[in-house]
Amino acid sequence: MPVNLSLPAAAVVPGVSLSTCAAGIKANGSDDMVLFSITPGSTTVGVFTQNTFCAAPVTVCKSHLEEQKQGDIRALLVNSGNANAGTGQPGIEAAKQHCAALAEQLDCDLNQVLPYSTGVIGEQLPNAKMLSALPGLVKNLDDSLPAWEHAARGIMTTDTVPKLTSKTVTIDGQVLTITGMSKGAGMIEPNMATMLAYVFTDAKIPKNDLNEALKISVHKSFNSITVDSDTSTNDACMLTATGVGATLSAEHSQWGDFQNALDEVLLLLAQAIVRDAEGATKFITAEINGGASVEDCRAIGYAIANSPLVKTAMFASDANVGRLLMAIGKVGLAKLDPYQVNVSVNGLAVFENGLLHPDYSEHKGGAVMQADDITVAVDLGMGKHAASIYTSDLSHDYVTINAEYRT
Amino acid sequence: MPVNLSLPAAAVVPGVSLSTCAAGIKANGSDDMVLFSITPGSTTVGVFTQNTFCAAPVTVCKSHLEEQKQGDIRALLVNSGNANAGTGQPGIEAAKQHCAALAEQLDCDLNQVLPYSTGVIGEQLPNAKMLSALPGLVKNLDDSLPAWEHAARGIMTTDTVPKLTSKTVTIDGQVLTITGMSKGAGMIEPNMATMLAYVFTDAKIPKNDLNEALKISVHKSFNSITVDSDTSTNDACMLTATGVGATLSAEHSQWGDFQNALDEVLLLLAQAIVRDAEGATKFITAEINGGASVEDCRAIGYAIANSPLVKTAMFASDANVGRLLMAIGKVGLAKLDPYQVNVSVNGLAVFENGLLHPDYSEHKGGAVMQADDITVAVDLGMGKHAASIYTSDLSHDYVTINAEYRT
Repeated sequence: MPVNLSLPAAAVVPGVSLSTCAAGIKANGSDDMVLFSITPGSTTVGVFTQNTFCAAPVTVCKSHLEEQKQGDIRALLVNSGNANAGTGQPGIEAAKQHCAALAEQLDCDLNQVLPYSTGVIGEQLPNAKMLSALPGLVKNLDDSLPAWEHAARGIMTTDTVPKLTSKTVTIDGQVLTITGMSKGAGMIEPNMATMLAYVFTDAKIPKNDLNEALKISVHKSFNSITVDSDTSTNDACMLTATGVGATLSAEHSQWGDFQNALDEVLLLLAQAIVRDAEGATKFITAEINGGASVEDCRAIGYAIANSPLVKTAMFASDANVGRLLMAIGKVGLAKLDPYQVNVSVNGLAVFENGLLHPDYSEHKGGAVMQADDITVAVDLGMGKHAASIYTSDLSHDYVTINAEYRT
Repeated sequence: MPVNLSLPAAAVVPGVSLSTCAAGIKANGSDDMVLFSITPGSTTVGVFTQNTFCAAPVTVCKSHLEEQKQGDIRALLVNSGNANAGTGQPGIEAAKQHCAALAEQLDCDLNQVLPYSTGVIGEQLPNAKMLSALPGLVKNLDDSLPAWEHAARGIMTTDTVPKLTSKTVTIDGQVLTITGMSKGAGMIEPNMATMLAYVFTDAKIPKNDLNEALKISVHKSFNSITVDSDTSTNDACMLTATGVGATLSAEHSQWGDFQNALDEVLLLLAQAIVRDAEGATKFITAEINGGASVEDCRAIGYAIANSPLVKTAMFASDANVGRLLMAIGKVGLAKLDPYQVNVSVNGLAVFENGLLHPDYSEHKGGAVMQADDITVAVDLGMGKHAASIYTSDLSHDYVTINAEYRT
């Protein structure tokens, strides 16, 4: 069960139609292929995993995006159940073959189709099954809201719920929609990338501006979450502006409104991944203030968020101040003065002036820790920068899920 | 139960006497104070945690060692059950007070006494109890082997067994003994330091040479282990040369023999910590070869050793190649070519030329994973450097132990 996960309702984005099917990649027969079809003249940008063992579809995606200089992508083809990673040259060939078959059926160029995979690493894709599923996917393309909801389920692996949400922003009196979906519950510490996320808007936006907006939003959302410190081989976050709606660019006086709305959608989708993380019973925000730089704040935030000792204490609803201090200290920030550091948990001051706060008691700590959403606020006393990192706890279910993933 | 832990038998080191008692710091009444008394004219060196929130005794230790320029330390005073960390100025005062009281009773200078604490973080030491235990500790000093065994138990916290071992080396026809003990089972990723370890030799060795020898050994032992990626606030590894036996220095033709013996003792003690790690069911060696540098090899080794997904797969005896590739790739080594990387598990080739090894099967992988000791050997195909990192798996018991530590 996800932790306090309720996303604002989703709406369709004009210019996108979708279809989803069960091609037999997942052994349990649930949906495992999703096709996003995008209207001609749109602009698509993306960010990808930095993992050296990046999956075959990531390699193909990046090369197609580079070739297709206008970003006029016509289709995103996603399969779940198999990551097509660690599959060498045959994996690359398979991804290209699917793109080629789809390009023919959609009457577009090969490099206008982008492939994505997520699931088990190290196994070749079931090519025949996937190729034979394509005509059905093309035939069933649909631009209704249920098609979006269906797609958000089709990209899931160990997720327990689909993650789909929207935000609107009014530009020059015209309502624009931003709708996104994400998946992922484990192997989550995106590095300048994310798990699979697909975000669409009907705005018409120049490619460079769209790219810049995506990078800004991803930094504060998908690149600020961790479940288990492990960076997937398949992470991708895509943003498509279909161009059906209002025209917008970074020069526009309301560009900030668009960026804010995009930030909000991506943050909700990234947090949704953490709320639905493998075995999660708590949603934890490490909110770091008073840093000499954003990088320092992020390093401290990740040290807290990735510490198995902090995460098991959270699972036990234990306000374990010692482990929080340990995590802050292990980063080794050169000028950090322990006597200047303040720590609070859900508003309860726990550490101040190098000591437990005089009003703190384990009883009070235990009381605030009963909440499902926990914010550990740290003031480093070094400067004016801040960052927040989001994570889940480390529970028995996390071990069970990951020790039994393939058995 | 520790994983395949059997240490070579220990022997006493002339020039050291010990005593151990239960001062009432631990609630369960087991031993919690240990005194090492060292003969005058010895040389003691140490390395300490790099955690910014280092404990009060670490601060006092470092300042005493700096003041006592000859390294002529007369006593090490250790308590378990309370880390005296996150305790601010009162914690520093307490540590100094214990040193002062002991210095008076042993008739030595304040800076010839070094304090150590391990246990819960964030609580003040029970000063009165500890001060009143000192006369008994001094009175009961004993240089027999049982006193060493007793001390190795007295420094334990969540350890399930004591860790004490020896190695001898013959220099100029004279037998020298190196005996060490260590403790620690969680909050283990020492950073240029270690959990508590006390190592003694009867050799007479110049301070600089002793220091150098310790640094070399620690790098390959305590600084090559991880249980949970968390760096303790209290890590310390001490090495004392009592000078009762043969004289030795880095200029001696047999210095290499001494260094090797020291390396061996520290490696056994460091590995013993991992074998007795919280919840461990496997002892895992990440053996990285073919690196462009030792640092690259260590980074890859730690990425494997700290990955929760690798560690839960190990717990499940699952030769999960995908998670190993993910861990190798997430380090982001700039020139790593996935097609040049070879991976084997306990001698079974699993990955080669960017693909699963053609002879590999999950059945074969499952068979080699039945062993308690697992070696993941990775050849990076980039150069001639190598490093090994040692770790344990991530089990339900790890979560249980750390979610219930204080309850």
